[in-house]
Amino acid sequence: MKILLVICDGMADRPAGALKGMTPLEAAEVPNMDRLAREGQTGLMDVIAPGTVPGSDTAHLALLGYDPREVYTGRGPFEAAGEGVEVRKGDVAFRCNFSTVDGKMNVTDRRAGRISKGTHELAAAVNGMKIEDVQVIFKEGVDHRAVLVLRGPGLSPKVTEVDPHHEGKVLISKALAPEAEKTARILNEFTRKSYEILSKHPVNLARAKEGKAPANIALARGSGSPPEVPSFSEHHNGLKGTAIVGISLVRGLCRLSGLDVPDVKGATGSTDTDVQAKAEAAAAALKTHDFVLLHFKGPDLYGHDGDAPGKAAFIEKIDAAISGFVALDNTIVCITADHSTPCSVKDHASDPVPLLVWGKGLRHDLTDCFSELEAASGGLGHIRGHELMGMLTGLAGRNPKFGA
Amino acid sequence: MKILLVICDGMADRPAGALKGMTPLEAAEVPNMDRLAREGQTGLMDVIAPGTVPGSDTAHLALLGYDPREVYTGRGPFEAAGEGVEVRKGDVAFRCNFSTVDGKMNVTDRRAGRISKGTHELAAAVNGMKIEDVQVIFKEGVDHRAVLVLRGPGLSPKVTEVDPHHEGKVLISKALAPEAEKTARILNEFTRKSYEILSKHPVNLARAKEGKAPANIALARGSGSPPEVPSFSEHHNGLKGTAIVGISLVRGLCRLSGLDVPDVKGATGSTDTDVQAKAEAAAAALKTHDFVLLHFKGPDLYGHDGDAPGKAAFIEKIDAAISGFVALDNTIVCITADHSTPCSVKDHASDPVPLLVWGKGLRHDLTDCFSELEAASGGLGHIRGHELMGMLTGLAGRNPKFGA
Repeated sequence: MKILLVICDGMADRPAGALKGMTPLEAAEVPNMDRLAREGQTGLMDVIAPGTVPGSDTAHLALLGYDPREVYTGRGPFEAAGEGVEVRKGDVAFRCNFSTVDGKMNVTDRRAGRISKGTHELAAAVNGMKIEDVQVIFKEGVDHRAVLVLRGPGLSPKVTEVDPHHEGKVLISKALAPEAEKTARILNEFTRKSYEILSKHPVNLARAKEGKAPANIALARGSGSPPEVPSFSEHHNGLKGTAIVGISLVRGLCRLSGLDVPDVKGATGSTDTDVQAKAEAAAAALKTHDFVLLHFKGPDLYGHDGDAPGKAAFIEKIDAAISGFVALDNTIVCITADHSTPCSVKDHASDPVPLLVWGKGLRHDLTDCFSELEAASGGLGHIRGHELMGMLTGLAGRNPKFGA
Repeated sequence: MKILLVICDGMADRPAGALKGMTPLEAAEVPNMDRLAREGQTGLMDVIAPGTVPGSDTAHLALLGYDPREVYTGRGPFEAAGEGVEVRKGDVAFRCNFSTVDGKMNVTDRRAGRISKGTHELAAAVNGMKIEDVQVIFKEGVDHRAVLVLRGPGLSPKVTEVDPHHEGKVLISKALAPEAEKTARILNEFTRKSYEILSKHPVNLARAKEGKAPANIALARGSGSPPEVPSFSEHHNGLKGTAIVGISLVRGLCRLSGLDVPDVKGATGSTDTDVQAKAEAAAAALKTHDFVLLHFKGPDLYGHDGDAPGKAAFIEKIDAAISGFVALDNTIVCITADHSTPCSVKDHASDPVPLLVWGKGLRHDLTDCFSELEAASGGLGHIRGHELMGMLTGLAGRNPKFGA
């Protein structure tokens, strides 16, 4: 049996006033999810642990079968891999912003006037430098975003950030452990050098002429090293997987785990994504892979905006898109969320997420639709995120017997 | 309060086509189990962990209150104890087959023509030898089966098997850790010597004359050492227990745990067992012991055969047999399975097992019959196998207060 894991980012919610006290999932018309819930089983999942508010990266680590409390050090490596930068064991990676500072290293604009052009040239000017025996890899992302990878001996992700997260003085990175002294020193030197190089760069000189804020420094945060874990395939008895996902952070995390992460035309990682194209890509991938992760960012974005009706409508779009291929005889389907993003909170919350598992010949339960409410008494009970993959590979008959 | 734990081996299942989409337990008429479910509580149990496919040995270790992920090394010691061979701390034990090899050590029949006579003499010829400073204990089991125990200093169960598991060359045992080099060497020498001795043995010379495959080698697999754990009684606050069980592997495991394991006339460990005699033995044992484990292998065997109606019928037999004594005022009754053996899978599966707990004066829940479906929303929730005994001794008022 193959496995299709549909992750509706941030889908789980709380009762919304705008939906007469229903959650977006309850309010949405989702005949396909409801059918799978009726024929299969549902439950609730604490993606990390009860009370823990998951980030997108820690949540997806858990959903791929790793315990983020043991292996996660920071978002940097996933961001870097998401931008197509190779990240190796021992590297320390960061998410960066192109920002604007004045001559006294005060940040006046954290996003450098939301710069959208010329960042490739700026990144190229910083990329490739060497500080002590450490190689600097730097690459632009979308708009003001960029990633930094430090490669060399004796590095550690245990350093504080240089990005102050608001206007104010650029911070000096400090080591949080003795083994991170070198990394903090290199990062501070990189920050200084980025100012030295970028402030004189023709792109910024031109921006100054146009009255735009110069992107004259690169500010790092979210330091991390790639988790020292077996690959997804090694971790799950040779399961060969692919991920259909638009958003860069999750793309990078899946790629670092060893999943194939193809580009899908029209997949934007936002609410304007081509939901149908992604569903079709997942259906095609199921023909060549044993495991397909299909990810939709939309519900989370509506949650952050507090737009419950918009969230319900996007969930309906997902349901319609997957209708064509979800109930295959040879495929176990799991639909869930990576975390709750309640519209009333406008941010991630620790509430557990609903979970649905369907497969031909598997057990069913007494649930007859897919919602937070029904899932609370579903047959799958309450599980933890890092147990999900093992449960699915078990149901798919892919786990070896333990003992005789 | 005393405790009766009824284990219906492999009883848990999935919807079966032959039973109109019901599981065997759902389809079976089990008025006694249904009454206990109605008056008591049910739940689901991941015997080892979600997604883990239990073996019979690891499952029973968990049900006796030990975590097999921490203490299990292999089936050998349980097989040996099941054949009445004493297994001590530091011993390494194996399950063996009498097999037939040609002069080039190619296995031509793994079961030596399913030999059924003369194995006592063959085993006696191999038993008692000394290799280096290691004593060899070897005993025949039923038909082609036998057990091997190595006793001496510096042994380790971390060795590969010599049994190729199909026709082909006898394997050379290799150490999986440096401390197992000696054990691998001894095992290889034992294998060679068993051929040397058995190939010339009168029993085999006679077999050759009759055109039968000689049992001319002993091939070991399933190496293990006895778990280094407190006895069942020490582990459960002095609980004195007995196990009514026919199948050798589970008999050995219970015996090694320190339970009494009486012989019951008519108990075969198969589908032809005297269910009534076992139930009566359990009822009698409850008069002298605080804890009685009553085990029925039948449901598992029907599961392996894919015979859902046969499995349902055997479950009905169990229900009828226990009717006379289950609802005693002074006894907590727990009925469950050691793992799922779905008829559609014909092997063990990771699906959780239904669990029923009844006791006079204890809580009840909203469940009104005993089935996988109802248990999924029962009052006991979802527990792990190794937590069961503690829950039962707790309900029986046998656990000390933790704290003040």
